[in-house]
Amino acid sequence: MDVASRIERALNEAVAHAEVPGCPPRLGAAMRYAVFPRGARVRPRLVHSVAAACGEDHPAATEAAGAALELLHCASLVHDDMPCFDAADTRRGRPSVHKAFGEPLALLTGDALIVLAFQTLARANCKPERLAILTMTVANSVGVPFGIAAGQAWECESKIDLVHYHRSKTGALFAAATIAGAASAGADAEPWRMVGEKLGEAYQVADDIRDAAADEEEIGKPVGRDLALGRPSAVIELGLDGALYRLHDLVRGAIDAMPPCPNGAELRALMLSEAKRLVPAKLAQFAA
Amino acid sequence: MDVASRIERALNEAVAHAEVPGCPPRLGAAMRYAVFPRGARVRPRLVHSVAAACGEDHPAATEAAGAALELLHCASLVHDDMPCFDAADTRRGRPSVHKAFGEPLALLTGDALIVLAFQTLARANCKPERLAILTMTVANSVGVPFGIAAGQAWECESKIDLVHYHRSKTGALFAAATIAGAASAGADAEPWRMVGEKLGEAYQVADDIRDAAADEEEIGKPVGRDLALGRPSAVIELGLDGALYRLHDLVRGAIDAMPPCPNGAELRALMLSEAKRLVPAKLAQFAA
Repeated sequence: MDVASRIERALNEAVAHAEVPGCPPRLGAAMRYAVFPRGARVRPRLVHSVAAACGEDHPAATEAAGAALELLHCASLVHDDMPCFDAADTRRGRPSVHKAFGEPLALLTGDALIVLAFQTLARANCKPERLAILTMTVANSVGVPFGIAAGQAWECESKIDLVHYHRSKTGALFAAATIAGAASAGADAEPWRMVGEKLGEAYQVADDIRDAAADEEEIGKPVGRDLALGRPSAVIELGLDGALYRLHDLVRGAIDAMPPCPNGAELRALMLSEAKRLVPAKLAQFAA
Repeated sequence: MDVASRIERALNEAVAHAEVPGCPPRLGAAMRYAVFPRGARVRPRLVHSVAAACGEDHPAATEAAGAALELLHCASLVHDDMPCFDAADTRRGRPSVHKAFGEPLALLTGDALIVLAFQTLARANCKPERLAILTMTVANSVGVPFGIAAGQAWECESKIDLVHYHRSKTGALFAAATIAGAASAGADAEPWRMVGEKLGEAYQVADDIRDAAADEEEIGKPVGRDLALGRPSAVIELGLDGALYRLHDLVRGAIDAMPPCPNGAELRALMLSEAKRLVPAKLAQFAA
């Protein structure tokens, strides 16, 4: 079974736990809506790629870690889109969860997806020592002090710490993906942190470039929103050319930061192709 | 160190992870505000009591499990109080989190507290086999299909399943407390489920009685809200006398459901004193 199918199967099995008698049907429906149809699945693909690079020996652990991070990513999108944050009416080209199911259920859907991430890990029949490090890695990437919730909370401060803002809001889940990928394969995980952090920063820069330069139909959500909201953006800070150069630099840096591993070629190729995929088509030639 | 101090220390150490440089200070403040000053700590006290009854041999596991459940309880209160749910302006006699810190930060505070529960378990230096069952128990009590998020989501359905509504919204965390208490002590945990389920139902009935019959200053939150919102209530269903009888019956049932354990007397006493504490003072003589 290829990686994309393994990722979808793991997510499907996870969400199916909300679709049993006795569970409120609209909650199950909203959770499925938030997770499917598939987005790019960037983070679980990274988990699988790093696990493969490290000589994957425990596929159930890889799959659980990938699904957990994607569920957390989906949860963060549901909550971010809510009226008290971005007030985004659309996501992936269709109504956002709170538009489709109402605010109360959107709030609970995000909560339930966060918890589902940890249920998915705990259910994975993982070697207990690996479960501990995976749970810790995944939890830290989304909680305090430096996970996505913390990153998002910088938007509620009068003075924003830009380094921690970006590192927490976007970088944390990427660092978790590389660390969890290595840990799920039983490899020494800590050296993979910097690979993930650089990729996370690259992804943020690519997002800024898309927000500034893409067409709405290409990315399936409104453009120019970060600029309009006065949010920090690499494009504002560095200009479009500067941001493209920075993206290139970060991807190369991530590749250079990879520790020795038995099977790294595929992962290197993935990073380069992602860098091209993540910027608007008209700029892709400049990305990596 | 007595149980109350161990509970507060564990919660304090958990929340302190949000109070380090690089974490948004208002997020840390809001999390502390949501968890302190102490409420009754009903759920962690139950964890500790069951662990003690089972011959506690791993205090760090007990403390982590108790803290995790209390953090999840606090998270659920923060999200429940938000305008899209109960729109409660006060909690424990002071402004609710969204009133004190704003809606966006209240949303993130709940998210971060949910995650902190799992971080607290994963950090506890717990025996790996116990971590797995504790993580699963705690996660199931708050997620899908039968945890508090699912229970709450019944309020978003056009037709409510009352049995699953109560069992999930209130009972799940109590069942988790008894199961986790036993599991943290290395005991066979499953027989403790029914004890927790009966206590959870008792707690819900007591809550209905308070909502219908208490004074606002006695319970530190508005009264009559469930009635005003047309929510299901044991007092409406059974009358005040009937609800008091049912409470008595459930607490006795919980005591009868206790499996044999080396040290059960203290736990039995706690259950009886809780039943008195949880109803308005003027009715306490009828409770157990």
